[in-house]
Amino acid sequence: MSSKRIHNFAAGPAVLPVPVLEQVQRDLLALPGVGMSILEISHRSKTFESILAETEADIRALAAIPSNYRVLFMQGGASLQFSMVPMNLLGAAETADYIDGGSWAAKAIQEARKVGNVNVAASTKGERYGRLPAQAELKLTSGAAYVHMTSNNTIEGTEYKQLPDVDAPLVSDTSSDMFSRPIDISRHALVYAGAQKNMGPAGVTIVIIRDDLLERAATRKSSLPTMMSYAVLAENNSLYNTPPTFAVYAVGLVMKWVKAQGGLPGMAARNERKAQKLYAEIDRTGFFRGTARKEDRSMMNITFRMATEALEKSFVAEATAAGLDGLEGHRSVGGIRASLYNAFPEEGVDALVAFMKEFERRNG
Amino acid sequence: MSSKRIHNFAAGPAVLPVPVLEQVQRDLLALPGVGMSILEISHRSKTFESILAETEADIRALAAIPSNYRVLFMQGGASLQFSMVPMNLLGAAETADYIDGGSWAAKAIQEARKVGNVNVAASTKGERYGRLPAQAELKLTSGAAYVHMTSNNTIEGTEYKQLPDVDAPLVSDTSSDMFSRPIDISRHALVYAGAQKNMGPAGVTIVIIRDDLLERAATRKSSLPTMMSYAVLAENNSLYNTPPTFAVYAVGLVMKWVKAQGGLPGMAARNERKAQKLYAEIDRTGFFRGTARKEDRSMMNITFRMATEALEKSFVAEATAAGLDGLEGHRSVGGIRASLYNAFPEEGVDALVAFMKEFERRNG
Repeated sequence: MSSKRIHNFAAGPAVLPVPVLEQVQRDLLALPGVGMSILEISHRSKTFESILAETEADIRALAAIPSNYRVLFMQGGASLQFSMVPMNLLGAAETADYIDGGSWAAKAIQEARKVGNVNVAASTKGERYGRLPAQAELKLTSGAAYVHMTSNNTIEGTEYKQLPDVDAPLVSDTSSDMFSRPIDISRHALVYAGAQKNMGPAGVTIVIIRDDLLERAATRKSSLPTMMSYAVLAENNSLYNTPPTFAVYAVGLVMKWVKAQGGLPGMAARNERKAQKLYAEIDRTGFFRGTARKEDRSMMNITFRMATEALEKSFVAEATAAGLDGLEGHRSVGGIRASLYNAFPEEGVDALVAFMKEFERRNG
Repeated sequence: MSSKRIHNFAAGPAVLPVPVLEQVQRDLLALPGVGMSILEISHRSKTFESILAETEADIRALAAIPSNYRVLFMQGGASLQFSMVPMNLLGAAETADYIDGGSWAAKAIQEARKVGNVNVAASTKGERYGRLPAQAELKLTSGAAYVHMTSNNTIEGTEYKQLPDVDAPLVSDTSSDMFSRPIDISRHALVYAGAQKNMGPAGVTIVIIRDDLLERAATRKSSLPTMMSYAVLAENNSLYNTPPTFAVYAVGLVMKWVKAQGGLPGMAARNERKAQKLYAEIDRTGFFRGTARKEDRSMMNITFRMATEALEKSFVAEATAAGLDGLEGHRSVGGIRASLYNAFPEEGVDALVAFMKEFERRNG
């Protein structure tokens, strides 16, 4: 009983594939043939160097990352990237365009404003971020240093189906949907994500950056805190200082699992199926109400409400008691949120749908 | 054979207590009564909140941290602290004193110079950092914003036995000896350490900061990158964004192990005994030669040389083959280095001493 696993709908850190957890567990005292735990090995050891290289190679293969992009492993999560992006890429006389499509985009804007000129190209804040800004709404700056977007809004449950069409280098915070579906890296200049949704445990951030942006970052290298410089990180192959070795290792194992599931197309099919099941139930009678515009609905974070907050509270409490954990909406918006990341099992969705039907029967 | 553990003399990430590894392994698929892996639980969950609170309480108890200090958990290692300290604490018109006693101090100085005025109060760089600057050598600035020191030099094998006597707030990088012996927090204003030597795996940094420095940091809050602000981290109880949940958990387990070993006095006795055994062998005949001045010798990182580099190379290669791993000196200085952190077992020292005697017999 005490070690029985429940269904974890949390928005991140989030569920990981059971075979990955089992491999971590099996090798925890000593990696095979190494005689030390992954928690103990030096980041300068051959063992870790090959773990890092293999993890990068699998990431590159899964997303077909072109050779003029580097893959970097960092710490600090997307929140540190909110500062690193402008510090490395936004010159004093330049302007960066930000698409304000959700609460995290708003945070990215706050940090960028500390560094330089920001133009909010479009915002749906007035609509509580219930939809994404449309292409026609974007007021882009000619010659912008870059355009920043958030591909999936964890809090509000929206997700881009098509990338916005922009001339400036596109920078995307993909924290909550990176590697949940195919991604066309070549349409981006920089992509970043904390690992703790679809790619691994908390503690490592993945940054995919195009060479020309790295060159731009190199011109600011000497004035930035060394740890905040993309150029330094790239020159040192993510080993300027001690990286989060365990988290990198775990990401590596998850990448092998993703490959075994059919890669990113396999993930997309699986995630689409899970999400559609849940959206179908939400839309079935009107007892539940999706909060995001249908065209913009996220496959990752499915947000919905009920008639009253009291009902929502009962729903969450009863679901938790039934082993369906983490369904409370983000504290800033309330309601219900079911996060269905890569590793979330389809039987968990079935269990939630069954619970929803039963809850509606009793309360509808 | 493949899962047999060897002796790990690496300078960090480094050996962890076997009972800690065993507990991590046992509970890896699901924490007892929680139904989720520590790798999967939300940082906003009651479970993680209590792990964080308990880890902090144990840290406070072990070092008898006064109530006017906060304990913060961050990412980025000591290298990020090299920037955060001056960004938070060094005003435009102020000067910070730095004691340049080792290679890492020199890196801290480089980062501080990007932020403000730095006075190098003393340096032993000209002596290849083979000793620590003496009290009489310190040229301190009256009214300095703070004095920065490095308590233990991982690369050069020196360690302060007595804190320097200074008027300004003392900031200490204790990355390689925090919690290896009792520490008088009240003589410091800020202490920081990456966990990966004595306290846990790589991926989390522990910062102990006095309230008046936090107040100083609060005045700079709005201009700093949010993730670089001590004030923001403290206001949010280290949960401004997703912390490295697993690394915090592992630190918590190590703290319980340290308590069970007799706390910091127990650690000091154990570490002293291990180090003295090895120094005794180094000093026995002159075949080996310690590189640090005897009065400044580190209990953590024991550095020594032999007559020729060829001999050192054979020593490291043969030791590695004998299951004594990680004995190569830092790439910047060469020679031999044996790191004997808290969790390093005494039988590992015995094995190294026996190997040294045998090596000397064959090559002396």
